[in-house]
Amino acid sequence: METITLSDIEEMELLARVQFATSLPGAKPISLIGTIGSEGTTNLAPFSSVVHLGSSPCLLGMVSRPDSVNRHTAANILATGCWTINHLHPQILPAAHQCSARYPQETSEFDAVGLSPLFHDGFAAPFVSESLFRIGLELLEMIPIPANGTQLIIGKVVLVQVPSAFRHDHGGIDLVGLDCLASTALDTYFQLRAPVRMSYAKPGVSPTRI
Amino acid sequence: METITLSDIEEMELLARVQFATSLPGAKPISLIGTIGSEGTTNLAPFSSVVHLGSSPCLLGMVSRPDSVNRHTAANILATGCWTINHLHPQILPAAHQCSARYPQETSEFDAVGLSPLFHDGFAAPFVSESLFRIGLELLEMIPIPANGTQLIIGKVVLVQVPSAFRHDHGGIDLVGLDCLASTALDTYFQLRAPVRMSYAKPGVSPTRI
Repeated sequence: METITLSDIEEMELLARVQFATSLPGAKPISLIGTIGSEGTTNLAPFSSVVHLGSSPCLLGMVSRPDSVNRHTAANILATGCWTINHLHPQILPAAHQCSARYPQETSEFDAVGLSPLFHDGFAAPFVSESLFRIGLELLEMIPIPANGTQLIIGKVVLVQVPSAFRHDHGGIDLVGLDCLASTALDTYFQLRAPVRMSYAKPGVSPTRI
Repeated sequence: METITLSDIEEMELLARVQFATSLPGAKPISLIGTIGSEGTTNLAPFSSVVHLGSSPCLLGMVSRPDSVNRHTAANILATGCWTINHLHPQILPAAHQCSARYPQETSEFDAVGLSPLFHDGFAAPFVSESLFRIGLELLEMIPIPANGTQLIIGKVVLVQVPSAFRHDHGGIDLVGLDCLASTALDTYFQLRAPVRMSYAKPGVSPTRI
């Protein structure tokens, strides 16, 4: 076991430190965030910081960093009050990864990477037609994080689209069936395997696979 | 493609809605959070909401819900100013999942589930000896989330332990080598497979595997 101290971290070369720091959460979600600006330009950006906040109401958060790729997304969400989360499978990974390139604000990543926007009546933000697991959210709060100038964007889930064959009877979604990707660091993606579902844990009762 | 609307979500039976809502981020991280109370009782709780916030300094956040399992963790972090993140591999999954049982505050989950605390000089919170990827953090901020009474706990990474064989030359950590688990919903865990690392994305240049 190797011990890496605070001074070791501070002495890392910049890109190595970013790769290291973005590996620390372990397996991360990865999805394309779809938005539209007030002038009508659509935007797609990969985020690996989507997090469950609550089930009643159904709330998700995500962290926006003050860099250019994230800034377009946050500005569009402020302008329209909504966004979409579009999960990835291997066939759309190259196009999704390419959305992390620093395109100018007037360029739509849909056009630049070859993905197709999909609109629903009454919902401004574009979904990714090629995604098999799509979520529409309405903005509730943007909470500043003083520690480093990031912000937590919080939304209420108002629409979910997924093939019915990948909805489990217990309510969850079959991520292995969807071939839904995970991620780590800045640039690494995984498939999922060997799902195990465990029984509800109670003191004094050994957990079992169900 | 099935469309699930806001009213469909609101009409779901409670447990099904929680399983559904906790599936929406896609693949989630999963780790055991180690803390100690001011009276000396150690605590372990599984969290699937650890998120990267920044690399300089190296910051991670996690969401604490106002229920009993999370409350012990948050109270201990407030009391001592520190905690540990301990990533999971399949051999310790049953014990880790059992830490989600609602043990009384005076019971240490280490004792209850058969994991071993590991202490480092000058750091109050216990690490999980059996984990192969361990992180020590110091509390920076606890940010209330008004939307649903949760809070975002933010810490600075001060110590990381991982076998040196699983550190990539580029700075990242080899999650497949560590057999680091991912999770979804309340009770489902995955292994990772088929890692793909993509080249840095630039406008006009097709991304490639590296």
